[in-house]
Amino acid sequence: MRFDILTLFPETVIDSCNFSILKRAVSENFIEIHAINPRDFSADKHRKVDDTPYGGGAGMLLACQPYCDALNSVPKLENSKTIIMSPKGKIFNQLMAKNFAKLDQLIIISGHYEGFDERIIEISKAEEISIGDFVMTGGEFPALCIMDSITRLIKGVLGDDDSCEYDSHYDGLLEHPHYTKPREYMGCNVPDVLLSGNHEEIKKWRRLNQFIVTKQKRPDLFDKFLKSDLSEFDLKILKDNNLI
Amino acid sequence: MRFDILTLFPETVIDSCNFSILKRAVSENFIEIHAINPRDFSADKHRKVDDTPYGGGAGMLLACQPYCDALNSVPKLENSKTIIMSPKGKIFNQLMAKNFAKLDQLIIISGHYEGFDERIIEISKAEEISIGDFVMTGGEFPALCIMDSITRLIKGVLGDDDSCEYDSHYDGLLEHPHYTKPREYMGCNVPDVLLSGNHEEIKKWRRLNQFIVTKQKRPDLFDKFLKSDLSEFDLKILKDNNLI
Repeated sequence: MRFDILTLFPETVIDSCNFSILKRAVSENFIEIHAINPRDFSADKHRKVDDTPYGGGAGMLLACQPYCDALNSVPKLENSKTIIMSPKGKIFNQLMAKNFAKLDQLIIISGHYEGFDERIIEISKAEEISIGDFVMTGGEFPALCIMDSITRLIKGVLGDDDSCEYDSHYDGLLEHPHYTKPREYMGCNVPDVLLSGNHEEIKKWRRLNQFIVTKQKRPDLFDKFLKSDLSEFDLKILKDNNLI
Repeated sequence: MRFDILTLFPETVIDSCNFSILKRAVSENFIEIHAINPRDFSADKHRKVDDTPYGGGAGMLLACQPYCDALNSVPKLENSKTIIMSPKGKIFNQLMAKNFAKLDQLIIISGHYEGFDERIIEISKAEEISIGDFVMTGGEFPALCIMDSITRLIKGVLGDDDSCEYDSHYDGLLEHPHYTKPREYMGCNVPDVLLSGNHEEIKKWRRLNQFIVTKQKRPDLFDKFLKSDLSEFDLKILKDNNLI
């Protein structure tokens, strides 16, 4: 998969990808990351990329010409999608990550400091994507979040192909609590069942605790889960513990 | 304000802060950023920070000792809060950003690859925070998002103190479209009203378009807005355009 990011800070974006999973995925040729600076495409002699808003108001706006020309310079692969990081966008989630992981190319337009001229969105046909209801200085950190969450879903990137299956949000529930050595730390003990060696009981305890944690912390997700096709195993645990 | 981040990749986090607003806020002494590596606190002779999960299963877990000892090494300021990046956490939003911006210190525990031993959360009394319903390799990028969104709200950090006021989510609505030069680009025109010089009409058009964009893209936010105390100005626009 190929990522192309339009950003005024291409070196920072590339440097920030140079660790952990993204670094490994690049070095093992699962992904390619290209950063394009719209400033390099500015027709202005001072390489300006922004201008004042029509209708007045504070701040500057990123202008069509440098962004559209930068976008046109990106070689398009077959199965390609363009998104633009925007607080007005659809909220990114795990399902989008899974779908984006099937693409050959994701082009990400990232603004900085300022808003975009609306026509950049219109002309590029980019889908507006937000990572949440908070405002940031630029789209660079959100773009990195999205690239990371997609990359780890690409087959072969995580050493153990199973490891995604136990993630929070994998089946719409949050994770159960985890414990490792030592058995006791500062007066806090590992639950006995996890030390019992009884795999059936451990499986039940973990599933029950996924239900409890999700119900308590994210009732919205729990309600959604209850409306899905429930297995007999899940139904029995939910009923036995008065969770439905 | 002081940020302390517990991370296995302290250099990457510090380097990723070295641009734009975070860089400026550091150089102008609005914020300090410290990164602490729990590996430096590991009591294990191989500087191990993780171990296998009790009860079996794939993957490894970050262990109590290195994380709790690293946390204890952080000097605590008066008005301090500790959070832990976790997919099980409360979803970060602009209101949290505003509240966190009033702190003297935010300590951020960031995991990587693996889950945490649950007792780290218990012992640290850290609040679990998530940036959204998607899974990432580590808490580093989400921590950077949070630090950026908080930093820009600290008084004095943005040159123009007004610039936050026009942000999406500032009053619970998304932004209206923006336009800058030229008037026509690739067949797309700036709306006439923005060229009219009639400030009252421009103000109304912008507010109306905030309503329209929010209603279309985020009906959840629009419903919430309608339930708030509406000004007469807003009420008139909403009624005149059959939006309520």
